[in-house]
Amino acid sequence: MSGLNEDRALADLRKLAMFGKVGRGVNRPALSDADIAGREWLCDRMRECGLEAGIDGVGTVYGRAPGAKATVLLGSHSDSVPMGGWLDGALGVIFALEVARARQARHPSGAVGIDVISFSDEEGTFLACLGSRAFCGLVSNDELASARSSSGEYLVERLDALGLAQRERTEFDPTRHRAYLEAHVEQGPKLIEAGVDIGVVTGIVGLRRFRVRFQGQADHAGTTPMAMRRDAAAAMYAFAVLVPEWLRTASSSDSVWNLGVVSVKPGAANVVASEVELVVEFRDVSQATMAQMEAAFAMLVAERNEIGGVSVHAEPIGAVEPTVMDDGLVTHLEAAAVAEGASRLRLQSGAGHDAMIVGRRAPAGMLFVPSIGGRSHDVTENTSEEDIRRGLRVYDRAVSSILESLDLAGPRVP
Amino acid sequence: MSGLNEDRALADLRKLAMFGKVGRGVNRPALSDADIAGREWLCDRMRECGLEAGIDGVGTVYGRAPGAKATVLLGSHSDSVPMGGWLDGALGVIFALEVARARQARHPSGAVGIDVISFSDEEGTFLACLGSRAFCGLVSNDELASARSSSGEYLVERLDALGLAQRERTEFDPTRHRAYLEAHVEQGPKLIEAGVDIGVVTGIVGLRRFRVRFQGQADHAGTTPMAMRRDAAAAMYAFAVLVPEWLRTASSSDSVWNLGVVSVKPGAANVVASEVELVVEFRDVSQATMAQMEAAFAMLVAERNEIGGVSVHAEPIGAVEPTVMDDGLVTHLEAAAVAEGASRLRLQSGAGHDAMIVGRRAPAGMLFVPSIGGRSHDVTENTSEEDIRRGLRVYDRAVSSILESLDLAGPRVP
Repeated sequence: MSGLNEDRALADLRKLAMFGKVGRGVNRPALSDADIAGREWLCDRMRECGLEAGIDGVGTVYGRAPGAKATVLLGSHSDSVPMGGWLDGALGVIFALEVARARQARHPSGAVGIDVISFSDEEGTFLACLGSRAFCGLVSNDELASARSSSGEYLVERLDALGLAQRERTEFDPTRHRAYLEAHVEQGPKLIEAGVDIGVVTGIVGLRRFRVRFQGQADHAGTTPMAMRRDAAAAMYAFAVLVPEWLRTASSSDSVWNLGVVSVKPGAANVVASEVELVVEFRDVSQATMAQMEAAFAMLVAERNEIGGVSVHAEPIGAVEPTVMDDGLVTHLEAAAVAEGASRLRLQSGAGHDAMIVGRRAPAGMLFVPSIGGRSHDVTENTSEEDIRRGLRVYDRAVSSILESLDLAGPRVP
Repeated sequence: MSGLNEDRALADLRKLAMFGKVGRGVNRPALSDADIAGREWLCDRMRECGLEAGIDGVGTVYGRAPGAKATVLLGSHSDSVPMGGWLDGALGVIFALEVARARQARHPSGAVGIDVISFSDEEGTFLACLGSRAFCGLVSNDELASARSSSGEYLVERLDALGLAQRERTEFDPTRHRAYLEAHVEQGPKLIEAGVDIGVVTGIVGLRRFRVRFQGQADHAGTTPMAMRRDAAAAMYAFAVLVPEWLRTASSSDSVWNLGVVSVKPGAANVVASEVELVVEFRDVSQATMAQMEAAFAMLVAERNEIGGVSVHAEPIGAVEPTVMDDGLVTHLEAAAVAEGASRLRLQSGAGHDAMIVGRRAPAGMLFVPSIGGRSHDVTENTSEEDIRRGLRVYDRAVSSILESLDLAGPRVP
């Protein structure tokens, strides 16, 4: 036996949920008093089991296995969105803590070990994935200096007020951190709808986001004949129904898109619309598919603009590249699920995670447990206790097999 | 000669434009100080030429031909939209004044004469077509009591402050007012685009306005597969492109529609829309066509609602019946245009006018002069001096022939 204690892990998960507790959920935005209190509590738990733990210069909690020369890095984040769920991030952090705790009890100073991390501000209160980006050296000083919360507070001021600004930042170490494994709630309905126990993530989708502007002319909607109009709203409706048609020709069966932001001006029932803005985003796990979708989208914009009357222009306002999860780690996770008698499904993550960032530096893998109703980023987010326990056992078993395969002298890929 | 003085009319039109002057336009909302000052100035001009004139209990200026037993009622309105054009309404009032002035000079106390009117609040600062509706007995005391401006001021308070509340209201008199003739700027591009001098209005469109609600479900736009979504925005786009297709099957070549108000909630790029509101309006001059369009629209709503996933419901939020202009008056206007050597076009009015209200009580007719660029409800609204002069001559000639055809003992239709 690995010494895993499911009850202890569940109890700690519930204790962490007391920091910023709101109903069944938590309100624990990054670097809030509740977030910092939760992180200090995490440090204490890590130290209790023998890890060298502290909060770093951006708010990330890092617990280091003393004596280890090669480690698997386990964790997630312990901040939440405002009025968020109790498991998003926290589940992965407590899974990591419990698995490390069990390992420390048996191998307190092994050359191969487990480091535990709770990244700062994954949810983007100041800067999305701040902790993992800082860890991977993927954030510039300019970004740090200009990062602000929606209430206008600067990140650097907040770090200073918390006494963290002068601390060092934990850094990714390629010779030490041989792999990163993150457990997380799915935040979507695929597992729960399919009745499957465990999701093995094969990749995290990339994203493209565009603001499309339609420029026409305002006219009296009673006196201007249909044929004389330059109706920006009509042009937008025609465009909006073509977007799925065009993207579908270029997409995979797992691609998703959304046209969820619309602004029509002047916005009067009896005035032909002069100006419309539409935000279009699309996501896929494959870089090649994303490139095809982007090309199809650009062709559609060009074609609609050529019709004339109403000009159509698209401005990119967001881009994230897809991240492929490590094949070896996928295999470890699937084997662990089989050994635990858990049904499993390979799937992609439609939401971003710290594994998306760390995956650019090290082999990364993710395990999902089902989300009831597919809900997340809401206090109603939940997962059954049975699914949490099973997820922890599969995660623990996967970590054990990864650690067994670690070759101290070999390449960093397990 | 009729004694018409084009220069005097143009001078008066420019004088009226000094009340509330803003750039090339006017800011003369109903019952504002500028509007009342303009109306007092109008009363003075009417009295000068021998009409019995005054401002009534709702702000309408009425100039009565003394001694006349049967009259043609001429006029329009002298209030404007905020920051409006100098001709919208004012042109018809000054044309009426000039034609009456010329008639009074030759027949100061004829049994057949001209009454002049400038209706109050056509533009709806407090209540659209207040003056003409009150004149025709088509406004209830409840409506008057609850009418408020967008700034929250009650109509009755404003009338009281102006000392008008206790005055009598001018009332339509079927034995006296044998016909109503209104000149107006087109407020649309048909005449100017066709290079035609005079528009002879055959009817004023009716209008139907609906608020269409799409109710779906908010979901994470990254993690929710396309097939599992209840996307209210996607349902709205599909609906919006079908509206013209369905209306076209039921409409005339002159029907118009507009989908110019859209609200998408929650309105985030990465959240599937849960709730959308779309305002749809359509207009036609024929009651039968309006009924067909309304039926087609209702069928479309029902069909889209049956698809399921997203519910679709339409709530009527506005209805105005079409008004047919009197055939005899159309003939008089066309004959007058021919006699003046003016090119002419029969057209419908896509905008509402006081003639739409008075037309329910008496034979009504309208003459349009071209609007440069089709612009209106804006300070840039304008008509060439040549077109104004020609319009006045045609209008005067039409009134003369109508007056000649008036049979004191006969039916009220000329």
